Amino acid sequence: MEVVSTTGELRTAVAAARRANKSVGLVPTMGALHEGHLSLVDASRAECAWTVVTIFVNPLQFAANEDLSNYPRPIGDDLAKLRLRGADLVFTPTDDEMYRIAHGTFVDVGVVARPLEGAFRPSHFRGVATIVLKLLNLASADRAYFGQKDFQQTLVVKRMVADLNVSVEIRVCPTVREADGLALSSRNAYLSPDERRQALAISRSLREAKAMVTGGERNAASVLVRMRAILAEAGITQIDYVVLADPETLENQSKISGPTLAAIAARIGSTRLIDNELIEPSPEP
Amino acid sequence: MEVVSTTGELRTAVAAARRANKSVGLVPTMGALHEGHLSLVDASRAECAWTVVTIFVNPLQFAANEDLSNYPRPIGDDLAKLRLRGADLVFTPTDDEMYRIAHGTFVDVGVVARPLEGAFRPSHFRGVATIVLKLLNLASADRAYFGQKDFQQTLVVKRMVADLNVSVEIRVCPTVREADGLALSSRNAYLSPDERRQALAISRSLREAKAMVTGGERNAASVLVRMRAILAEAGITQIDYVVLADPETLENQSKISGPTLAAIAARIGSTRLIDNELIEPSPEP
Repeated sequence: MEVVSTTGELRTAVAAARRANKSVGLVPTMGALHEGHLSLVDASRAECAWTVVTIFVNPLQFAANEDLSNYPRPIGDDLAKLRLRGADLVFTPTDDEMYRIAHGTFVDVGVVARPLEGAFRPSHFRGVATIVLKLLNLASADRAYFGQKDFQQTLVVKRMVADLNVSVEIRVCPTVREADGLALSSRNAYLSPDERRQALAISRSLREAKAMVTGGERNAASVLVRMRAILAEAGITQIDYVVLADPETLENQSKISGPTLAAIAARIGSTRLIDNELIEPSPEP
Repeated sequence: MEVVSTTGELRTAVAAARRANKSVGLVPTMGALHEGHLSLVDASRAECAWTVVTIFVNPLQFAANEDLSNYPRPIGDDLAKLRLRGADLVFTPTDDEMYRIAHGTFVDVGVVARPLEGAFRPSHFRGVATIVLKLLNLASADRAYFGQKDFQQTLVVKRMVADLNVSVEIRVCPTVREADGLALSSRNAYLSPDERRQALAISRSLREAKAMVTGGERNAASVLVRMRAILAEAGITQIDYVVLADPETLENQSKISGPTLAAIAARIGSTRLIDNELIEPSPEP
């Protein structure tokens, strides 16, 4: 496994893979790798001859009040995991390598970036879109892999790729969970044991929503009341959103009539967590 | 010469050229082709094995009060000129082909897009950057060719390409002029004979600036007074800007100490024209 940290080295390695007619898979990460990330590496290796993993804690997608400086950076562990998992190249640039002093260009994707995460983290998706486009350009990837846990991010990236005619296929892989339902997240490392128990109410609430809708419930308000009740019972009070939304437009649903995204963002202590479930309602009786 | 109008056809043709190991040159235009555009085709053919010319009047770079609907579209003449000049492929998409209903993504390049044209055409460069990035992605070009007449546009494109790690070389070719000095522009077609005579004062003013600075003048204010006087003598009163600026940052110069951009934007009747000269001052005595 090759590890490089400059764009020049990355381009050289990509060009060599291209010359060898290898298809290229890109797995963009911020490191602190868990099985969710590693499942993306597996997916890329299954489809692509050469897999590039990038590890870069992108300052552009953090607001001033967010956890940029505390974000975990266990680079040694990350490289060991990627080596075991069979990544071909790891790109670990510095901030200066990705954003030169004069950097001035930003990519905005419009309406799909505005609700949910966009409403609570106003410049987040502009930072995501900009760095993902840079990495797609550098890696010249045939396919790029993202986790469903960051569902809105996958919509933002797909919209950008379609609108800007970027020649890459975007693959979305299922959220990986602990046995008790907690969605894997690098930010779970911030949780105390008590907070971790409390956080379980998020996935429990989403499972309950799924059970209600697949059981025939069509009234979104009824489902949302139950979802909020589960969070409240667990003592979760700092809720950014609990929604049932159209999974393409992210518009809130009042009557559930097709595929639906159930999504939650909440703070457990000082840790902000997000999770979601895609729900396919049972056919009308 | 192949002429295609869908992104799919363009991608197929590009892939074939790539498979044949041909280097690809891109000449993005809005049509109404003149010798300025055709000199870019020549430059591409001299350096690249396969030259793509795009003809698309990009609605995104026109403001509501501008000349989008009147912009000349002599497509038959354009194709004849390109055939004579040896273009390999011409891409002539419709608006719908380039911007789907759901299009939401825009590229902003920051400070270099804000003064001069950016100040008078606030969303112009966002439209330029977005369409150029789309065309670069579609054509997968090794080199792309732009005219110096749209000097700020070349800075915007270079900044975008550097900031987003787009793998392309941007080439800037000299402004092509009529024998009497008028810079070629598709918008010259709007000028009446009287207006055309009046418009000559723009290039005359720029030549005078160049003569003064290469003659040793270092005080920008003195040069600007003379430039404005030449425009005034010709009866040009609708002036958007007359500047001497740093050709990298576009910041106004007060003392001229290195390479300098002299640039003018003015309206002749209802036709807005721009022109510029890059000036290398004589060495200090």
